[in-house]
Amino acid sequence: MEWTRAKRYQAYSNWTAAELLSLQQQVATSDYLPHYHVSPLSGLLNDPNGFSFFNNQWHLFYQAFPFGAVHGLKSWFHLVSDDLVHWKQQGLALKPDTIYDSHGAYSGSAHVIKDKLFIMYTGNVRDKDWQRHPYQNGAWLDKNNRLTKLQRPLFDQPEHTTDHFRDPQLLYLNNTYYALLGAQDKETLSGKIALFCSKNLHDWQDLGYLDFTNNDMGYMVECPNLVLVDNKPLLIFCPQGLNKKIMNYDNIYPNVFIIGDTLNLAGASFTSRQAAPLNFDEGFDVYATQAFNAPDGNAYAVSWVGLPDISYPTDQENWAHCLSQVKELRIKDGCLYQRPVPAMAQLRTAGKHLTPGNNKISEKNCLIDHPSQHFELKLTIPAGQAGTLHLAADKLLTHSLALEFSTSKKAFLSVDRQNAGAPFAKKYGTKRSVKLPADTSLVLDIFFDNSICEIFVNNGSHVLTLRLFPSKKQQKIILESSQFIDYNGTWWNLKPIN
Amino acid sequence: MEWTRAKRYQAYSNWTAAELLSLQQQVATSDYLPHYHVSPLSGLLNDPNGFSFFNNQWHLFYQAFPFGAVHGLKSWFHLVSDDLVHWKQQGLALKPDTIYDSHGAYSGSAHVIKDKLFIMYTGNVRDKDWQRHPYQNGAWLDKNNRLTKLQRPLFDQPEHTTDHFRDPQLLYLNNTYYALLGAQDKETLSGKIALFCSKNLHDWQDLGYLDFTNNDMGYMVECPNLVLVDNKPLLIFCPQGLNKKIMNYDNIYPNVFIIGDTLNLAGASFTSRQAAPLNFDEGFDVYATQAFNAPDGNAYAVSWVGLPDISYPTDQENWAHCLSQVKELRIKDGCLYQRPVPAMAQLRTAGKHLTPGNNKISEKNCLIDHPSQHFELKLTIPAGQAGTLHLAADKLLTHSLALEFSTSKKAFLSVDRQNAGAPFAKKYGTKRSVKLPADTSLVLDIFFDNSICEIFVNNGSHVLTLRLFPSKKQQKIILESSQFIDYNGTWWNLKPIN
Repeated sequence: MEWTRAKRYQAYSNWTAAELLSLQQQVATSDYLPHYHVSPLSGLLNDPNGFSFFNNQWHLFYQAFPFGAVHGLKSWFHLVSDDLVHWKQQGLALKPDTIYDSHGAYSGSAHVIKDKLFIMYTGNVRDKDWQRHPYQNGAWLDKNNRLTKLQRPLFDQPEHTTDHFRDPQLLYLNNTYYALLGAQDKETLSGKIALFCSKNLHDWQDLGYLDFTNNDMGYMVECPNLVLVDNKPLLIFCPQGLNKKIMNYDNIYPNVFIIGDTLNLAGASFTSRQAAPLNFDEGFDVYATQAFNAPDGNAYAVSWVGLPDISYPTDQENWAHCLSQVKELRIKDGCLYQRPVPAMAQLRTAGKHLTPGNNKISEKNCLIDHPSQHFELKLTIPAGQAGTLHLAADKLLTHSLALEFSTSKKAFLSVDRQNAGAPFAKKYGTKRSVKLPADTSLVLDIFFDNSICEIFVNNGSHVLTLRLFPSKKQQKIILESSQFIDYNGTWWNLKPIN
Repeated sequence: MEWTRAKRYQAYSNWTAAELLSLQQQVATSDYLPHYHVSPLSGLLNDPNGFSFFNNQWHLFYQAFPFGAVHGLKSWFHLVSDDLVHWKQQGLALKPDTIYDSHGAYSGSAHVIKDKLFIMYTGNVRDKDWQRHPYQNGAWLDKNNRLTKLQRPLFDQPEHTTDHFRDPQLLYLNNTYYALLGAQDKETLSGKIALFCSKNLHDWQDLGYLDFTNNDMGYMVECPNLVLVDNKPLLIFCPQGLNKKIMNYDNIYPNVFIIGDTLNLAGASFTSRQAAPLNFDEGFDVYATQAFNAPDGNAYAVSWVGLPDISYPTDQENWAHCLSQVKELRIKDGCLYQRPVPAMAQLRTAGKHLTPGNNKISEKNCLIDHPSQHFELKLTIPAGQAGTLHLAADKLLTHSLALEFSTSKKAFLSVDRQNAGAPFAKKYGTKRSVKLPADTSLVLDIFFDNSICEIFVNNGSHVLTLRLFPSKKQQKIILESSQFIDYNGTWWNLKPIN
């Protein structure tokens, strides 16, 4: 089937239930389906939306197109959880069914107001000439998870932006509602973060652009997200077309962060000593991260694991992408840390302790040979070691995800997915590397889940997330080294979340 | 919407995806949805089908009509499990898409043959005059869970039955395949179990009716199921229109069993000293139980928790029914025992120990007050006690599921759902009772899951299963007695299976 524009944007009522049931069956039987990450029932998943805590539950939504692995007519799919790990599917909560979101209920956020959850999102509308009209809309979710849309948009596109004006994040600070939006400036066609404020959610004032950098942020900024982490304002966003002289990145579009020093939203000001944005995730596939300050005092983030404008192997199976696990954010000594939430440990089944023992002299030490490719591997490598940890490896190491490391003077960790399975996105390189502190032990906490791998380095000072599409034969974990190598760790098979 | 015949049997392609997505969303947000029992994604679930162990996994299917709480055009929905408790949904595996199953892929069974799973099922076909033609069809499921139907039916309806001829159970004994089928004799219009055999699955021989009783079994027998339990043949089936002089039952149709002494399928003979069939489950809502002999040496059974021709409160929410938990079968001293599988205990979270303590003198002792209505309660009541255990009780006991018991001379347990919540099926009585051994302690293992309750009595010598539809206010467990009462037990909140 050719994905014409008409096909992508046709009403859900123009698809048959038979088609949807077949798609759902095809996805449910996919070998690449994650076991403990959120993935779509069918079709495409992208941005996390409306991440919040309401009515004694965690709520999370994602952008969903149920009919194929393309960006078509989007809805919000709703999930609830008691522990940020086990997510219960609640179906499509927000659908494109009004004149203010006729071509997609696009990304947005949620904020608890009294006994309801207020949802703010971009209604994507195209006119007859396919000209885009982005409306910023509101909806209320009640305690029975019933959703009611506001009759009219909250506000329209301002004069000073193009029609690239979307992804509102609603914040409440100093008795004022603020909305941060991704925007493209009309005059300069450059990426901006637009800022609006309101006392009552009805009357909105345009505060212009947030002043957060002196650098050019490319042609568009998507998914701006502001969160307080250990009393520092943290700005997360996705600049498109960013000049690589400003910051180095390899993915088609980076998902970046800036740790701020001062924040004054009324004055549209965010100051930072950080010279340039940094990659939020140093792997291959993280985008559109959404974080929020939860009532438990923590800041939690969740990411789309997938990138715009890239084909993935499961496109052939009519589904694409998943969400990252939820990550707790911390700032320590001016550095951002991301770590798994405590409930992730509840997925562990009886662990297998790993030490070199008598195998220390072996050059290719098979640590694990297990058909389960949904596991956690926690491994500490002392200073002065070098080698390659192969995940999803076959016998002859023809195929594997190769994690090369040194914990000596020029310490580093690199991840190469060139031979990890079905090829994709090779244009953007198959290797990502991070520098590590010299002569220091390396602590890896690796979450592997069939076709997604999240590597937490040194207690979350780096995270490298990636998709990979190995064959069923790739079921070993092999530690390769030309020298005697020391290590200490545990491997756990992880239980599925549904 | 009126459920006309045309509407119930229209092709899945005549329903829109928008309708199905709305139905799925409505069901996902239902307050009555079980947490650890299999229930439909939308629409109606009935008979369990194809229960088997294949490719290192448990397989289970159920009869599914995805578009509403009515018996419409049926498919087989596929589930797989590693532990008989956590079931992973695999979508619609067997759909009504040939001329031999055009009006429904009806019930059947599965049997592992070499490296594939052979599925035998009834293809329901109606001609222009709405005359029924039941075909007995075959299909192969491979190790990738891909299903291929045979081109032609295995065999047709025999001369000696009416068109009520369905629900094949495939068995392999003494190098021969046997198929047991529910049937109505053409001459007498009485319920029978038809028997066919084959050496090769292609050429089938009609062995007439299984000789298993001298009693009249009503006008139709559904879902015949033969399984070996502790070296005894156990015949489970559903007689419709059975005379209550033969055996006592209260449900619209009973699901019964006979423990046999000898079995000779080649001779179409099953002998038993049991005078009459007994209720497989002594509660309100069990039907169409399917059991099989697993390679681990155990016999496992699973039931439809729902009855034909009865309206349930969730019909208004466009879904109906669930499956029972899997029950391990045993025969000891000529009696049938059913008990939970070991993995059920893995759903337990930290338990709360229950003893009378200082509350022993209280008349209405609130054991538990917890909003979670998905729990297990194991309670031992010593001999010489009497009282009522109220589940899903409100403060004033205006509403509750009332379990009255005596462990004295005339010992009994009765279950009354009259005031348990939204009313249904009152025509068939609101109370079920079992006699218990006199002056002996009573051991209850109760599994409660929002709208289903399974009560295992004295290590499974009786099981009482029922649906109930309590309000959110009914969250207490109260033990009521006019005397000092002694007891000892544990309450566990149970984790959801998805």
